Amino acid sequence: MKIAVDAMGGDYAPKVIIEGVEQARDEYSDLEFILFGKQDAIKEYLTNNTRIEIVHTDEKIQSDEDPVRAVKRKPNASMILAAQAVKDNKADALFSMGSTGALLAAGLFIIGRIKGIERPGLMPTFPAVKNVDEFVMLDVGANAENRPNQLYQFGLMGTVYSRDVLKIKNPRVALLNNGTEPNKGDDLHKAAYKILEDSDLNFVGNVEANTLLQGVADVVVTDGFTGNATLKAMEGTMRTVFSLLKHTILDGGVKTKLGGLMLKSDLGKMRDKFDTDKYGNATLIGLNAPIVKSHGAANAKAVFYAMTDIRAMLMNQTIKQVIDYFENHPVKD
Amino acid sequence: MKIAVDAMGGDYAPKVIIEGVEQARDEYSDLEFILFGKQDAIKEYLTNNTRIEIVHTDEKIQSDEDPVRAVKRKPNASMILAAQAVKDNKADALFSMGSTGALLAAGLFIIGRIKGIERPGLMPTFPAVKNVDEFVMLDVGANAENRPNQLYQFGLMGTVYSRDVLKIKNPRVALLNNGTEPNKGDDLHKAAYKILEDSDLNFVGNVEANTLLQGVADVVVTDGFTGNATLKAMEGTMRTVFSLLKHTILDGGVKTKLGGLMLKSDLGKMRDKFDTDKYGNATLIGLNAPIVKSHGAANAKAVFYAMTDIRAMLMNQTIKQVIDYFENHPVKD
Repeated sequence: MKIAVDAMGGDYAPKVIIEGVEQARDEYSDLEFILFGKQDAIKEYLTNNTRIEIVHTDEKIQSDEDPVRAVKRKPNASMILAAQAVKDNKADALFSMGSTGALLAAGLFIIGRIKGIERPGLMPTFPAVKNVDEFVMLDVGANAENRPNQLYQFGLMGTVYSRDVLKIKNPRVALLNNGTEPNKGDDLHKAAYKILEDSDLNFVGNVEANTLLQGVADVVVTDGFTGNATLKAMEGTMRTVFSLLKHTILDGGVKTKLGGLMLKSDLGKMRDKFDTDKYGNATLIGLNAPIVKSHGAANAKAVFYAMTDIRAMLMNQTIKQVIDYFENHPVKD
Repeated sequence: MKIAVDAMGGDYAPKVIIEGVEQARDEYSDLEFILFGKQDAIKEYLTNNTRIEIVHTDEKIQSDEDPVRAVKRKPNASMILAAQAVKDNKADALFSMGSTGALLAAGLFIIGRIKGIERPGLMPTFPAVKNVDEFVMLDVGANAENRPNQLYQFGLMGTVYSRDVLKIKNPRVALLNNGTEPNKGDDLHKAAYKILEDSDLNFVGNVEANTLLQGVADVVVTDGFTGNATLKAMEGTMRTVFSLLKHTILDGGVKTKLGGLMLKSDLGKMRDKFDTDKYGNATLIGLNAPIVKSHGAANAKAVFYAMTDIRAMLMNQTIKQVIDYFENHPVKD
């Protein structure tokens, strides 16, 4: 199992990428890597090149470039060469910390969409505090707009992923909506509800965004616009509350500081539940290979987790299952 | 200034409503109230009827009834009689803890939409941790779908409210979108951006849901579907984190419990920042009178805050300003 790695994406490239890749290489003896990027910069951080190949390139896609234009005009950018390696069967999966838009464009134009899938979805894993440990939600922003059938396809892809990577036997699929009753929502969500209800998926109905962290579903299906706002609202609220908590303790008097010290280890454990290294990654699903991205500001641990998820997808042939499903269930026009 | 109060809505009616109304009556000598509901039940809790009139009715709208049908078939329901009193100029504003859907229907069918306003918006006030203390966001669920011009109208109404009630001089209006760049979003949000940009409002561009609590805007404009998901995501995340924090302390060892005890007052102050009594209310704006609702499970303090906001709107003639604006700026067809 060989992973093509864009070594130049994100804020701390290539350092955190190399560190994360080496951690994954040391942990999983069945993984190999090709790193695309500046050879000198990579070698500065690489401690040991076992199962790690380097393909040199000077070019990279900047985070503020127009994604589609960048992908077309920079054939030698590290992300593009990595995508090309997957396309050419020199690697089985793609990892990048670069811009989501560029990665989506590279996925669509180079690696290609799974036949039958209308739109890929961006799918992070979230922690839950009840019922289950984790759930996935898609799409959280690969699309600005979706049609009803695309939401059903998200449910299907999320189901396969959830089974293979999160090890959930019969994943419960729910539709993110503005109420739990079946007739809720705008036209898009009403129509998506009907398709999901009539499908073979384990559809459990509508869920509202305030119950997501309670583990009400294993796969939460949403259009890219709403999913993006929901993800960001959860992220922002969590960051704000934890930051307030920290400042309450640091800016408090002696008693407060002492109390904070006594709680430190427990608060750390609580914070770990929402570990942003683990939950800052997202899979771009619907393309002909596993594509995983870490947040641009993520660290080596996040990269390690991304490699762990890619490995699970490769071992279970997650993408192949989706490809096979749509070969056997051609979409009616 | 007289407020028509549906005394029978919500989970703890009429108790918390009477308590909240009496607190507001005692605090504000310029407020009068008409309570609509079961006289016996009301009298059981009412300690003093100064500036409080009771209009008896046995009927009430249940929270699980179809809103439109309920409003049409129960002319003597407490909420409907209260709305009718506003319509008949016997009261200046409407308060209820009943279902949002029914209140919206009562507002539309009885009190009526402001001429020129296409759709009313549900607008809660949120706490911010930076830049400003509070901001408003609308619509968070009065509508399942909106058109671009409706988002502009939300911005206008939010501006007037923010000026009058939150005392912000030149409210910054922002569009909730899936990125900050001007060209972001689906067709709806791209079109709304253009209208807002060309308007007289103090439009500051797009904002993303992860920055809302940082006080990036005073009036956040959003379609009802996205706004609903964003509001609920923020609520659910906050509740989850605070609940985890509580359980971390309560379920911890002696050291943890002692630490929690030492932090108790500071954590309480932090929690107050997100006081759900204060921030569980929402104004239904776009109708011919102030209409404010408290969450069905809210307490007397929430009712008191709702009365405080209604009073500010009445003193500043907030609704009249919106009515006048649209009389002088007729909508082009």
